[in-house]
Amino acid sequence: MEQAMRLDDLETPFVAIDEAVLDANIARAQTVVDSAGITFRPHIKTHKLPFVAQKQIAAGASGINCQKLSEAEVFADAGFDDILITFNMIGASRLVRLATLNARVKLTVTADSPEVVGGLGAAFDAANPLAVLVECDTGAGRCGVQTAQAAFALAQEITAMPSLRFHGLLTYPLPNFETRVQAFFAATLALLEQAAVPCPIRSTGGTPSLFNAALVPLATEYRAGTYVYNDRKILSSGAIEVTDCAMQIWATVVSRATENRAILDAGSKTLSSDLLGLSGYGLLPDYPNATIDGLSEEHGHVDLSHCSKRPTIGERVRVIPNHTCVVTNLAETVVFHRDGAVTQILPVAARGRVW
Amino acid sequence: MEQAMRLDDLETPFVAIDEAVLDANIARAQTVVDSAGITFRPHIKTHKLPFVAQKQIAAGASGINCQKLSEAEVFADAGFDDILITFNMIGASRLVRLATLNARVKLTVTADSPEVVGGLGAAFDAANPLAVLVECDTGAGRCGVQTAQAAFALAQEITAMPSLRFHGLLTYPLPNFETRVQAFFAATLALLEQAAVPCPIRSTGGTPSLFNAALVPLATEYRAGTYVYNDRKILSSGAIEVTDCAMQIWATVVSRATENRAILDAGSKTLSSDLLGLSGYGLLPDYPNATIDGLSEEHGHVDLSHCSKRPTIGERVRVIPNHTCVVTNLAETVVFHRDGAVTQILPVAARGRVW
Repeated sequence: MEQAMRLDDLETPFVAIDEAVLDANIARAQTVVDSAGITFRPHIKTHKLPFVAQKQIAAGASGINCQKLSEAEVFADAGFDDILITFNMIGASRLVRLATLNARVKLTVTADSPEVVGGLGAAFDAANPLAVLVECDTGAGRCGVQTAQAAFALAQEITAMPSLRFHGLLTYPLPNFETRVQAFFAATLALLEQAAVPCPIRSTGGTPSLFNAALVPLATEYRAGTYVYNDRKILSSGAIEVTDCAMQIWATVVSRATENRAILDAGSKTLSSDLLGLSGYGLLPDYPNATIDGLSEEHGHVDLSHCSKRPTIGERVRVIPNHTCVVTNLAETVVFHRDGAVTQILPVAARGRVW
Repeated sequence: MEQAMRLDDLETPFVAIDEAVLDANIARAQTVVDSAGITFRPHIKTHKLPFVAQKQIAAGASGINCQKLSEAEVFADAGFDDILITFNMIGASRLVRLATLNARVKLTVTADSPEVVGGLGAAFDAANPLAVLVECDTGAGRCGVQTAQAAFALAQEITAMPSLRFHGLLTYPLPNFETRVQAFFAATLALLEQAAVPCPIRSTGGTPSLFNAALVPLATEYRAGTYVYNDRKILSSGAIEVTDCAMQIWATVVSRATENRAILDAGSKTLSSDLLGLSGYGLLPDYPNATIDGLSEEHGHVDLSHCSKRPTIGERVRVIPNHTCVVTNLAETVVFHRDGAVTQILPVAARGRVW
């Protein structure tokens, strides 16, 4: 790559990452979690790139968090050796792959039912046991045991299996649920302590609550992904500024069919149709009163009716997406830059790894 | 690939295409458009696979329709020689690529403004002129000139350029807008006829209105994509049955945290968050009273409260997605089968080609 290449030279649409903002986001989050006296384990779902995860480890992260085994395999191949997969592992061939990975890296997974624990127990070996965290539902309504009693019972089942090692508790809470997380951990720890079952890890997470990491004193680990790039959803929480958004999609206005309508060459295949409770599909920082009020697959529909200044056909505009993680997953490549000078263009290493 | 491999042997989540249903969908659509006495040009956005487009051509399609130049390049490399790109082409390097493609295949593009026509005119050469259709907005509110007078004026601008060839009119209408499409074409054709400007192509399209292709007598060409696989959105129109849906996503129930909740290992990275005005993110044909009421990136949240029969942890279920095109664009590979026996697994050749 020539040093002289600039974002202005690239064909739209493309996903641009400002490395200076990225580095600042990584440093700030690590400082916040360090201040809470706990370890930080970034979730790679947001970037899916060893290049960015290496920056996170260099800043002090203890390891990485993946959501799927196929992602973990990509990162193990890239040299990462401490990986948590926060997913219930089910299926004969998947468990074979999991055991192969457990022989290569320091691996931890989660479980929330006797069925999952039973499958793990049968697939592993006491010579190289698998570390398992019990996932707890503290109100988000996804996976996770529902009560401290159920968490304790599942921890006992794990402990009873020679091929598994009970390693602790994990939750993915809703924002501002610190009190409930702390209470769930406390109640479970009390039961575990009575039974003399050690529980070294109590893991919580989520970017929206990152700056409140200290509000769960029983936590030992924090996980977050989105903070690394940030997006319009995190902006809406008030925790960050537009200038903290490292990811911007560059697009071109390809049609101005009417006075109040602009059409971009970036649609749902670039921006994704994730709304996350927001109105509109992204923010145009240069046209803050414009709204992306609809998406076709290759067209972004922009309503200009509240704009005084309006973009012209052929003009390039930037978009801060609603949800940065899904944009990464749609892109073939991501363009890194400093002040508009391209530093590198990387294929998204773990894109589409859903199995 | 071994002949004996079956869908049951594959790890979830994956995208399965029933070849018998696919072949029937292709044959039926071709018959409908043939009966209307016009040509059929399938849109490749739904499958993004030369393998499927070859079936469409073999059934009688006149050529293919792409949405982006990068898709057209993939299909030209695969041997397709009659390609329509329904997009305004803007930008110096893109126009160079477009001219390269025009030297290789019979190429047609669309335009809806003097700015786009001016750019095309300057980038092409009278020795190998580019065929251009004027895109008309017949009510869908995306790209397209707004009136017959504007269409006529733009056709004259194209005709005046030695490097371009005015080839006709194109619209992407809303469903049941046949009367408006016919009226727009009629009014524009009247103006063109007065000026003795030939207009060989009048192209309309859309899967929801496919069975009404005969209702626009002035049309010469029909374009459609989704019909090839079908999806829950087309199902909701009443034009097809569940058995006409060639695409199903196979997923596994990984959690039953509560009596009324099942969590699948397929989330928005597999099913996409496209709602298209529907409620819920897909249909479970084996559990028709279940609703996929939420998606995380890797988790599908299923509400079982209206189900008498309920899936167990580890059970594999099938999902008919809301929008088949975006599922294709998310997938690394697609699995073709006949009665559950895998016939081939293909990487999605034009996935992510948005530029």
